[in-house]
Amino acid sequence: MIEYSNDTITAVITASGSAAIGVIRISGNEAISIVNSIFRGVNLEKQKSHTIHLGYIMDNDKILDEVLISLFKAPNSYTREDVIEISCHGSNYIIQNIFLLLIGKGARAAKPGEFTQRAYLNGRFDLAQAEAVADIIASESEAAHKIAMQQMRGGISKKLKTLRASLIEFAALIELELDFSEEDIEFADRTKFKNLLHQILQEVHLLAASFKVGNAIKKGIKLAIIGRPNAGKSSWINALMNDDIAIVSDIAGTTRDRIETTLDIKGILFRLVDTAGIRETNDTIEKIGVQRALETIESADFVLYLFDVCDLSETEVLQDMELIQNKTKAPILVIANKSDLIKDNTIQSNFNNISDILFLSSKDEQNIATAKEKIYDIVLQNYKFNNENVIISNNRHFEALKNAEKTINTILEELEAGISTDFIAQDIKSALRHLGEITGEIDVDKDILGTIFGKFCIGK
Amino acid sequence: MIEYSNDTITAVITASGSAAIGVIRISGNEAISIVNSIFRGVNLEKQKSHTIHLGYIMDNDKILDEVLISLFKAPNSYTREDVIEISCHGSNYIIQNIFLLLIGKGARAAKPGEFTQRAYLNGRFDLAQAEAVADIIASESEAAHKIAMQQMRGGISKKLKTLRASLIEFAALIELELDFSEEDIEFADRTKFKNLLHQILQEVHLLAASFKVGNAIKKGIKLAIIGRPNAGKSSWINALMNDDIAIVSDIAGTTRDRIETTLDIKGILFRLVDTAGIRETNDTIEKIGVQRALETIESADFVLYLFDVCDLSETEVLQDMELIQNKTKAPILVIANKSDLIKDNTIQSNFNNISDILFLSSKDEQNIATAKEKIYDIVLQNYKFNNENVIISNNRHFEALKNAEKTINTILEELEAGISTDFIAQDIKSALRHLGEITGEIDVDKDILGTIFGKFCIGK
Repeated sequence: MIEYSNDTITAVITASGSAAIGVIRISGNEAISIVNSIFRGVNLEKQKSHTIHLGYIMDNDKILDEVLISLFKAPNSYTREDVIEISCHGSNYIIQNIFLLLIGKGARAAKPGEFTQRAYLNGRFDLAQAEAVADIIASESEAAHKIAMQQMRGGISKKLKTLRASLIEFAALIELELDFSEEDIEFADRTKFKNLLHQILQEVHLLAASFKVGNAIKKGIKLAIIGRPNAGKSSWINALMNDDIAIVSDIAGTTRDRIETTLDIKGILFRLVDTAGIRETNDTIEKIGVQRALETIESADFVLYLFDVCDLSETEVLQDMELIQNKTKAPILVIANKSDLIKDNTIQSNFNNISDILFLSSKDEQNIATAKEKIYDIVLQNYKFNNENVIISNNRHFEALKNAEKTINTILEELEAGISTDFIAQDIKSALRHLGEITGEIDVDKDILGTIFGKFCIGK
Repeated sequence: MIEYSNDTITAVITASGSAAIGVIRISGNEAISIVNSIFRGVNLEKQKSHTIHLGYIMDNDKILDEVLISLFKAPNSYTREDVIEISCHGSNYIIQNIFLLLIGKGARAAKPGEFTQRAYLNGRFDLAQAEAVADIIASESEAAHKIAMQQMRGGISKKLKTLRASLIEFAALIELELDFSEEDIEFADRTKFKNLLHQILQEVHLLAASFKVGNAIKKGIKLAIIGRPNAGKSSWINALMNDDIAIVSDIAGTTRDRIETTLDIKGILFRLVDTAGIRETNDTIEKIGVQRALETIESADFVLYLFDVCDLSETEVLQDMELIQNKTKAPILVIANKSDLIKDNTIQSNFNNISDILFLSSKDEQNIATAKEKIYDIVLQNYKFNNENVIISNNRHFEALKNAEKTINTILEELEAGISTDFIAQDIKSALRHLGEITGEIDVDKDILGTIFGKFCIGK
């Protein structure tokens, strides 16, 4: 474990802005004595944990505010240190002044994530769970929230701990072999060992693979809307958003800049990106737009391709789709737009060679609902978002899993090749380290901790 | 007292935005049972007031968040009803969903100020104190905070209650005289009564007069910066703010729009308003700017007039000052700017006819400090901001005090003229009503209550 200075830290833990209340947290050995020295009310030193006390915060003999003090005594607190939360009137003036009073009495301004870092260092939860706290706060959709909650409640940790435990057993046996190397005895059953490695490999691979969906859900699924000018892209964005965000006009090539906005379909967050129409143009600014549209396709998780059904033939649509598929492997939903203008019921048969095509109009609410339903289905099908599986969404975890996967593959190769036990023992340690890095069970580098907690908001 | 429906109300009481925590308050008869129905932890019904409980908020069988529940049992709460505050992770997704769960279980979204309205209706504090809560939240400076705190702690209420109590005594005696009108006895000593009325009048007058300073301090003192183009107005604003807010350039007439920004000098808030230069111009947009500058002068509480000491003679400065003084009676501080460019030490003697003039340069930090000191001194001198006096800052209180003042003057006139006791009794009642309106001691009209609490933020 990394040492931490057990000085007393403080931060405002509510969002800034005028509101009914604001809350300031203080944690550490001197938390209670510091607050006591500026509090007029009961003697906080003598109160029980998990109690609330009404009183005044005093700036010398001047009343700064009437407040509620929430008292948490070590180890029954978020940080497992003594913690006090001061709930005051939500004026920036008051909040800032209480904070400054605490600093004046010897508290230090907490760094981002420092409360959670202390909770982790004091064993309240492991590193993966601590990281989930930041994800929970940032979660914008039901799916993202679910993944973060599962991680905070130890979903991924439990799985990794089981894998590590069985690997540690074999590591011990292998170490034993090294101690008795002159005897040339195999304590560790090589077949069982290989089976275990394959089992771990499979689990690690599944977890690492879940990163694609976990990351997309956490950040939102990037849905690019592509089509020729005047295909009705902006109208569709508006219809999907039920709001006027893009500028809609009848002049071809209106939308030059990408407009990013979010859309929640059944708890999954989508980031809609409007694009300039994909067509040949001589207008410099529009050319930049078309260039961006192509870049957008490259980084999209999902493509919504629109065309004007009155305007394009199936051949032309297939040409456009080929252009898109050259740029991305993301799923494509094709919408034959303005289908309300077509009286001919047989029009659909003209586009038989295109799968995942819907004949819709952005003017019909039922059509919009159908499109959303289809988008959701395709995402579920392509991202295999399963409610039961543990999903990882953290880049650091993904890297560690990929490293573990690589190392375990090496061990398997070494076993096949009959490489000396010395090397295998070394590689097992390496695999254990990679798996342990995720939950922080092994010593985590101070810089890594700094990076992890530095991403938190102040006050957490 | 106005009746209120004792249904259970809820609101988010922290500012919106991602943060470590968010807090949702629920108040009313069913507060505890509603929260209990979505809380997995201890049975809240069985817990003591002023205790905190860790547990989960459940959306059916899905964990929404790990939270802390603060429990306040009637009458020991802000509203004097049962109150629960749920402290959850500060994600908008979580906060909104807990709020919606509470609504789903039968709570109603609280109207702005409704918690405080209930606190008032349940006798936790009087109306003036309730109004002070909103002022405390909005206070942006030490002085504004002090006035609001004084009001919340009952400063103005105490003063008014004493005045009203003595007036009520006389009202009773006068009523007695009416009962015995045929006997023609004076129960109320007319000389003592007049003395009391004069005493009340003086106090009411003082309170009403304090509104000017109270209001200026609450809203911030509007400080207009005026001068000819290129006098250095923007540089002075920047220097005072120690920040680059206005665009500074050497082209005369750069600043066309008013830039309002705030400055705290020794706890008093100033609203700095930059103005276009005051000069003849043919540029249409600039003409609008000059027009605005003149309007700004009219509404300013303080004028900072700048001139380029290398450029203008005393006669020209006096011309400008006359222009300003035609528009306002606000105090004026004159700054002879760019005085660092003048090598001649006798320059000051050229401006002997101007009082409150400082020879300064915006480039010298000590000069800036001197200017701030002088501004503060002039404000103190002109606004008679006395730390000891009770100061009112509320428009509604000012109106009531003015009405009381007027009515008491009428009573005095009636006493002088020997008007029938009937009329006097009526006017005493009217004066009592005006004074009582401030603290809400008399029935306050439902519409007025609606207006008062409607100005609060949601959640208070």
